[in-house]
Amino acid sequence: MSTGKLTIDLSALAANWRALDALCSGETGAVVKADGYGLGVAEVCRALARAGARKFFVAVAEEGAAVREALGPGPLISVMSGHMDGDSALLRAHDLTPMISSIDQMLRHVERTPRQSFGIQLDSGMNRLGLEPDEWAALRDIAIRQMPVMVMSHLACADDPDHDMNARQLRVFKEMTAGIDVPRSLAATGGILLGREWHFDLARPGIGLYGGLPFAQARTVVALDLPVIQVRDVHPGETVGYSNTWTAERPSRIATLAAGYADGLIRAMGSRARVHHGETACPVVGRVSMDLIAADITGLAREPEALSILGPHQSVDDLAEAAGTTGYEILTALGDRYARTYLK
Amino acid sequence: MSTGKLTIDLSALAANWRALDALCSGETGAVVKADGYGLGVAEVCRALARAGARKFFVAVAEEGAAVREALGPGPLISVMSGHMDGDSALLRAHDLTPMISSIDQMLRHVERTPRQSFGIQLDSGMNRLGLEPDEWAALRDIAIRQMPVMVMSHLACADDPDHDMNARQLRVFKEMTAGIDVPRSLAATGGILLGREWHFDLARPGIGLYGGLPFAQARTVVALDLPVIQVRDVHPGETVGYSNTWTAERPSRIATLAAGYADGLIRAMGSRARVHHGETACPVVGRVSMDLIAADITGLAREPEALSILGPHQSVDDLAEAAGTTGYEILTALGDRYARTYLK
Repeated sequence: MSTGKLTIDLSALAANWRALDALCSGETGAVVKADGYGLGVAEVCRALARAGARKFFVAVAEEGAAVREALGPGPLISVMSGHMDGDSALLRAHDLTPMISSIDQMLRHVERTPRQSFGIQLDSGMNRLGLEPDEWAALRDIAIRQMPVMVMSHLACADDPDHDMNARQLRVFKEMTAGIDVPRSLAATGGILLGREWHFDLARPGIGLYGGLPFAQARTVVALDLPVIQVRDVHPGETVGYSNTWTAERPSRIATLAAGYADGLIRAMGSRARVHHGETACPVVGRVSMDLIAADITGLAREPEALSILGPHQSVDDLAEAAGTTGYEILTALGDRYARTYLK
Repeated sequence: MSTGKLTIDLSALAANWRALDALCSGETGAVVKADGYGLGVAEVCRALARAGARKFFVAVAEEGAAVREALGPGPLISVMSGHMDGDSALLRAHDLTPMISSIDQMLRHVERTPRQSFGIQLDSGMNRLGLEPDEWAALRDIAIRQMPVMVMSHLACADDPDHDMNARQLRVFKEMTAGIDVPRSLAATGGILLGREWHFDLARPGIGLYGGLPFAQARTVVALDLPVIQVRDVHPGETVGYSNTWTAERPSRIATLAAGYADGLIRAMGSRARVHHGETACPVVGRVSMDLIAADITGLAREPEALSILGPHQSVDDLAEAAGTTGYEILTALGDRYARTYLK
């Protein structure tokens, strides 16, 4: 076995859902797109359903089919790309609820799947997905008569509570949904933390469930341990890895570990990342290779069999900082070669 | 269907193998680790075997099992992480050939799988995998009597033909393998292009097969087209995407496309990437989201159904440059949500 060991704590995932649910003034759903943020959509969905989630959000219809297979009939499964050309059979077969984001999509939905549930996605300022105010004004009365299951929008800057965009989008969303009797949803994890005014009828946490910022109180969900393939002495002046980017300044013990950027250890992290043996941090040295990284273990008393790159001493957000990205990308990049264990 | 369409040209892959094979003075194998550089190991291996490859290289034993399943008995399958604890049953069951990189691994191999073929991996200066000169000196006579199928090493700087490391590693490799009657292998794609002195008995191209630099003559293997979910007008002063990083300076038409960093569109590319409609380039605007990107299509005469992000007008290396990484990472990051088509 020379693959990393990825351990996914489903009880921590469930605890994070319950902690966010306790903050929400309305119902709490769960975003499980991108294979459950990289952690395995079937296991993730079942754990969240056991915790109490009844509304699930995915990006595309194909993902919705996998969620339905994992959960069986009953829970609402919302498809955030809406009703695309070619989706109709999947939506029907798996009882999926597209979040309609344009007049084109609305026409397609009514024409091809007239009895299929749907929601409405409004653009409150992010300019990414959702009906614009003028489109919504034209469609609103017709759409409401078709009984959408929810009206939703998405915040662009919710991870930054001080950004004035949050209040602006809240105001626009309130204006666009004033006087309609349809459940409303605006907040993901960041929006939940902004406060009750953002919660409306349904919140849709994603990253916070999986242990990432901005939910600083989240329990750690992911641990990743990398086996040591080989340990060698490197003399001062010798280099390690591609393009000789790291040079030993002292007699060093260098461990080669079995994971690289093909496993989602983003290449940009380079030598800014660390691996841990117990509480001792060991710097990554040289370039991240496709299947390998090297670490300076000179400070360790004995040769380890494995080193930790995600766990209690280095969170997904710590590793993201080393790679110049976000915890979201660290999670969704986690590769297929790891041996995965689910703690229940 | 709101997922991207990934088209993999197996005839271009085979042509790239033949073109590299024509350059080599010895035999030409193929590196198919990391799921065939992200393109699907079974299809990739079968196409390369049809082209004439008989020796395949993977990173870990689990990958070797998948290659054996795709190819059946016969071809040599080399495991570059060697013989790790826990690998023995897999190596035996699938007739895999570990590249032994330490004395520990040699002892494990002889003890647990004494009749199983193996190779020797030497460190010629990269300090990543392979026996050090002093370890090799101690092991050499014993190892040779066990009849390794090859002795290999790996170049650290072969992508840069002017780097003096190339000549230094060549010299060390020659010294370490002088006087032994075992096939020798040093070059991957970059090493092949350095010239015949680096080729020895077996070359092991990887990236060049898949259309990436440093093999500038490679045929394009990968095309990726992203469906347009929605198009909207954005007024001057309005922002697009997370954290409002892009602001329209003129009346703009913005398309939202169905792929993001969870599909391997590395978040760091941000607004430096482009998508194409025919020959017209459209800049990506704002942050790459998990499942979505936005592009400025103001310059297009009509609304496209899809836009190309990899293909004849933007290579994996072009996209890598936008993301501050290499074509290798662009390929291995390609996600699981794409609909894949193989051209034969």
